[in-house]
Amino acid sequence: MTAGGFAAVEVIRTKRDGGTLSDGQIDWVIDAYTRGLVADEQMSALAMAILLRGMTPAEVARWTAAMIASGERLALGDVGRPTVDKHSTGGVGDKITLPLTPLVAACGAAVPQLSGRGLGHTGGTLDKLESIPGWRAGLTNDEFIRQLRDVGAVICAAGDQLAPADRKLYALRDVTGTVEAIPLIASSIMSKKIAEGTAALVLDVKVGTGAFMKSLDDARELAATMVGLGAAHGVRTVALLTEMSTPLGLAVGNAVEVTESVEVLAGGGPPDVVELTLALAREMLAAAGLADADPERALRDGRAMDRWRAMISAQGGDPDAPAPVAAETEHVRAGRDGYVAAVDAYGIGVAAWRLGAGRARKEDRVSAAAGVLLHRRPGDRVQAGDVLYELRADDAARIPAARAAAESSVRIADDRPTVAPLVIDRVG
Amino acid sequence: MTAGGFAAVEVIRTKRDGGTLSDGQIDWVIDAYTRGLVADEQMSALAMAILLRGMTPAEVARWTAAMIASGERLALGDVGRPTVDKHSTGGVGDKITLPLTPLVAACGAAVPQLSGRGLGHTGGTLDKLESIPGWRAGLTNDEFIRQLRDVGAVICAAGDQLAPADRKLYALRDVTGTVEAIPLIASSIMSKKIAEGTAALVLDVKVGTGAFMKSLDDARELAATMVGLGAAHGVRTVALLTEMSTPLGLAVGNAVEVTESVEVLAGGGPPDVVELTLALAREMLAAAGLADADPERALRDGRAMDRWRAMISAQGGDPDAPAPVAAETEHVRAGRDGYVAAVDAYGIGVAAWRLGAGRARKEDRVSAAAGVLLHRRPGDRVQAGDVLYELRADDAARIPAARAAAESSVRIADDRPTVAPLVIDRVG
Repeated sequence: MTAGGFAAVEVIRTKRDGGTLSDGQIDWVIDAYTRGLVADEQMSALAMAILLRGMTPAEVARWTAAMIASGERLALGDVGRPTVDKHSTGGVGDKITLPLTPLVAACGAAVPQLSGRGLGHTGGTLDKLESIPGWRAGLTNDEFIRQLRDVGAVICAAGDQLAPADRKLYALRDVTGTVEAIPLIASSIMSKKIAEGTAALVLDVKVGTGAFMKSLDDARELAATMVGLGAAHGVRTVALLTEMSTPLGLAVGNAVEVTESVEVLAGGGPPDVVELTLALAREMLAAAGLADADPERALRDGRAMDRWRAMISAQGGDPDAPAPVAAETEHVRAGRDGYVAAVDAYGIGVAAWRLGAGRARKEDRVSAAAGVLLHRRPGDRVQAGDVLYELRADDAARIPAARAAAESSVRIADDRPTVAPLVIDRVG
Repeated sequence: MTAGGFAAVEVIRTKRDGGTLSDGQIDWVIDAYTRGLVADEQMSALAMAILLRGMTPAEVARWTAAMIASGERLALGDVGRPTVDKHSTGGVGDKITLPLTPLVAACGAAVPQLSGRGLGHTGGTLDKLESIPGWRAGLTNDEFIRQLRDVGAVICAAGDQLAPADRKLYALRDVTGTVEAIPLIASSIMSKKIAEGTAALVLDVKVGTGAFMKSLDDARELAATMVGLGAAHGVRTVALLTEMSTPLGLAVGNAVEVTESVEVLAGGGPPDVVELTLALAREMLAAAGLADADPERALRDGRAMDRWRAMISAQGGDPDAPAPVAAETEHVRAGRDGYVAAVDAYGIGVAAWRLGAGRARKEDRVSAAAGVLLHRRPGDRVQAGDVLYELRADDAARIPAARAAAESSVRIADDRPTVAPLVIDRVG
């Protein structure tokens, strides 16, 4: 046991026994963990104690500040436009970042969107964009700021120097059953967003079977915690609580979600994707001081699409490249007449993951073409023999397990169901 | 993340969310951890979840069985005498194993005492015996069994093959703030004692400021858990709950505790040490089916002392070697007249540790001669200027910090205090 180890045990015991960590303890443990003086097995024990004992608002604020201080904080004051970013806590079919980022840029803001890759049943924005030939996720800080000034829209990977404590802690939580701690989720998200330098932020906190937060109470607590953290660090922050028991749109996968996003930018696309894109765009523009902008018009008149093409091209991607085609496709049909009563987001997410669209381990590659295409959504009328959804994969061997997950997720009933509203609440 | 890592996260989540681990989960996680397939940071998160969520009696039983199954289990059926062992949960000045082991052997039982080294404020039996020139703690299994047959008394280090899962887990818990979990303490103690092959076992569960268990409720729960585990594995087990808010005897250290133990074996020694030695001896002899033996007489007539000398000699020690003398001694005197109202075990343990008798890190060496010698105990009358205790160290620089810990531990009052009984309760 090192001298650092001694202090770590004291910090762990304090939280384990239900106490409040001091500012000094928090600053020390984050710094020492980043530098390797606190061991992984100590930090995971502390993370479990935090998960089960909770943290006060003051502790979460300090924890977040310490994670920001573990790395650099970007300055975006000279990009020439108001900066505003969006973060989603993750869901199935959640491609909203793709149409939203160029749309908000087309309305006059600059959107510095640092994104991640997917793990488990939720997809990652970078995985989706990497299905576009030539597109690259990695930019230097200079490239990032230049593109933000020139195009107003960037979606790229976060650099190694942004909240490195969070990077290390997130990987540890993933393998130690300590992901689902609200203080740790909130500080992880907000440390990266604050460090990236955005002046305003809109959070899309998902709630439902396909989200991290299964209950509305948990989602509300997470939203309130993050809004408070943003305010404490001078970032204007609001949150929407949105429904994630049903996948967003009709496409769940990588290239299929890019295609659907381009449909939205062309003025079409599934109504729920359009609705959420516009709701978030209005919040972002209001937070950026551009409340008079008209995002609906920017979708209709082609300005959002132009900005998409410029954004993809600036990172080496070909916006005109055809989408990759899956080698195997299976159509699944309704066994009876009725109404689609439910399409469970978690099950469809697992199906897409089993088809190859997601990864089980960080080092896994994902398939560009694999995924689930819904042909019907909750509330739709179906007759026996109608196609309900299709499964796409590079390898036929992946289909049976995916089909098992999907089949138990789609329910047909006699009566037309009530479809829940997409935007549940706003926390600001 | 490995395939093993996946399963580990499932096990962690089950306990984290308040569930009950299945037999299969427990068997798998202990085996995989022993073989390095479950990482330290996963096991420490699980240990914290166990500490905060608890375990059912069935879970503790399976956990213990899995730890026993991680190594070898000794067979002591052919040593020619009934086997019975004792385990203390650890306290300050707790040298009882030293006189007790040869005493019980002198009365006809065989005592296979596998002991540990000290860490923190409680001393280790092996550290104490290693202050005897030539004595060695390490025996092969053959040597262990032969000495048990020939002498009837062995105190030695546990071999690497006895409950290796516990060895690894104990070291992990020590640096991750997860020592104080009753299910983990009980399974750690009992897996080693059951694997060592004893037919009967007497537990000395300490309660008080100088013990792991600060409250009587916790001590009772730990005792009941261990008695149940013993019964489940066919080991006749009883527990005494004994007082540990005051050090045992007058000597706290290594050589000084050997000297005090030899005084007991010679028919003298402090009354509390004699009382507890005899109480435990009677329980051990009854558990071994030797209830007619007279341990008090074995102390008086020299048989226990003879067995001590044989036991020390068999492991290379010189029972006649003079005790090492500390280079530095400081006497601390009473500042006023009155009665000694309290001598706090924890504070005196810390003082002895700071003098060099204990270790902060596993790799530290301990001083043979260092320690605290009490001249007065609770209930004794003192006059201003009387020596209360002396501090002994190899290095004068160690004395001031030790004195600070000791001074705040000894309290003098006007009225004669009520002294608590030593044996609080029996769980059998």
